[in-house]
Amino acid sequence: MEYYSRQISKLIQELSALPGIGTKSAQRLAFHILNMPKEQVEELSSAILDAKQNVRYCKECFTLTDEEICPICSDSSRNHKVIMVVENTRDLAAYEKTQKYDGVYHVLHGAISPMLGIGPGDIKLKELMQRLQKDVDEVIIATNSSLEGETTAMYISKLIKPTGIKVTRIASGVPVGGDLEYIDEVTLLRALEGRTEL
Amino acid sequence: MEYYSRQISKLIQELSALPGIGTKSAQRLAFHILNMPKEQVEELSSAILDAKQNVRYCKECFTLTDEEICPICSDSSRNHKVIMVVENTRDLAAYEKTQKYDGVYHVLHGAISPMLGIGPGDIKLKELMQRLQKDVDEVIIATNSSLEGETTAMYISKLIKPTGIKVTRIASGVPVGGDLEYIDEVTLLRALEGRTEL
Repeated sequence: MEYYSRQISKLIQELSALPGIGTKSAQRLAFHILNMPKEQVEELSSAILDAKQNVRYCKECFTLTDEEICPICSDSSRNHKVIMVVENTRDLAAYEKTQKYDGVYHVLHGAISPMLGIGPGDIKLKELMQRLQKDVDEVIIATNSSLEGETTAMYISKLIKPTGIKVTRIASGVPVGGDLEYIDEVTLLRALEGRTEL
Repeated sequence: MEYYSRQISKLIQELSALPGIGTKSAQRLAFHILNMPKEQVEELSSAILDAKQNVRYCKECFTLTDEEICPICSDSSRNHKVIMVVENTRDLAAYEKTQKYDGVYHVLHGAISPMLGIGPGDIKLKELMQRLQKDVDEVIIATNSSLEGETTAMYISKLIKPTGIKVTRIASGVPVGGDLEYIDEVTLLRALEGRTEL
C-alpha cells in the first residue's frame, strides 16, 4: 500500500474494507476508477452517498426503500392479509422475481443467533407482532434454511400460534435441477421427511 | 434490479459496472454499504472522488501520484540514470515491493496492441524518448511477458538502440517456487532458451 501515493492508498484501503474484496481486487478496482471518465466517477461516488442518505425502512414492512411506504405495501392490488417474513431485502427481491407471490412482506433485518448474540429484540419482531393486530390470514415464514433461520422460524411460530393466525414455513428440500449426488446430507434428509404423495 | 427501489437499483448498477463485480456481488456490496455507518459511507464516497480529482501523472515518470513529481522521482538517493519501463503503476508498485531496485521508472500506461488498436502513439513512449536526452546509462524494459508486452519491448529496444544507451529486458522463465508440471509450455521453452551456466 505504501508503494502508492496517499490518495490512491486511501482509495485501495476503503475498497478493500468491503466484503469479498481483497487487496488485489481493491487495487484493480482503484486503478479502474482512476481511469474512468470524471463524470462516471462522480456518478459512482454520489450513488453511494445518495443511497445511504435516502434509503430507509418502509414504515409498514421494513424493507429498504427510498419512499415512506414501499411500492409493495402501497400496492392495493396485493393481498395485505398474507405476510411473508424474510430475513432481508435481498430475500424479498428473490421472491418478487418469481412474480407469483401476491401477498406482502415483513423484513426482519437479521435472524436470531445466540452465537452472534443476536436476540429476538435485535430484529424487527416486535414490529411484526404489531402488524398482526390488523386483519391477517396467514404468516409465511421464509427465513433461510440455516441454523439461525430455523431458530427464528421456530421462535416466530411459537409467538404467533396463540393469536390463532395461520403460520406456515416454506418447504425445504432438493432444489429444482439439483443433482442428488452434489446435495448435502441434511438437505437430502429434509427432502425425505418432507416427501409428498403422488 | 427492478425489485429494488430506485436509489438501491442505481447503486447496484454503478457497482456492477466495475470490473470483476457481477450483479450478485454488486447487490451484496450495495446492501453492505447501506448497513455501514454514515461516516464510513461518506469516507468511501469521498475517497473515490478525491482520488479521481487529485491523482495525476508524475511529470517525470508518468506514474499515478497526487504530487507534481512522485516521491520516487524526487528522491535524490535513487539512481536517475537507470530507468525501468513498466506498463502501469501497479507494475511499478510490484517492483518497489522487492525493495531491491534503486533506479527510477517510466510508466507507459499500456502496451502496443495492434489487436486493440493501441499504437506507439497511444502510450507514453514519446515522453520516454524525451527523458533519454538527459544522461541515462540503462533502460530496463519490464513490460509484461504477454504478446503485447513483448511487442512493446521489441519496439522500444529498436527505438533506443540507435542512441547507444544500453537496453535490457527482464528475464522470463519459471517463477520461483513454480512446479514445472503446472507451467505452460511457452514459459518452459523460454526458461530453456534463457538457461545460464552454473
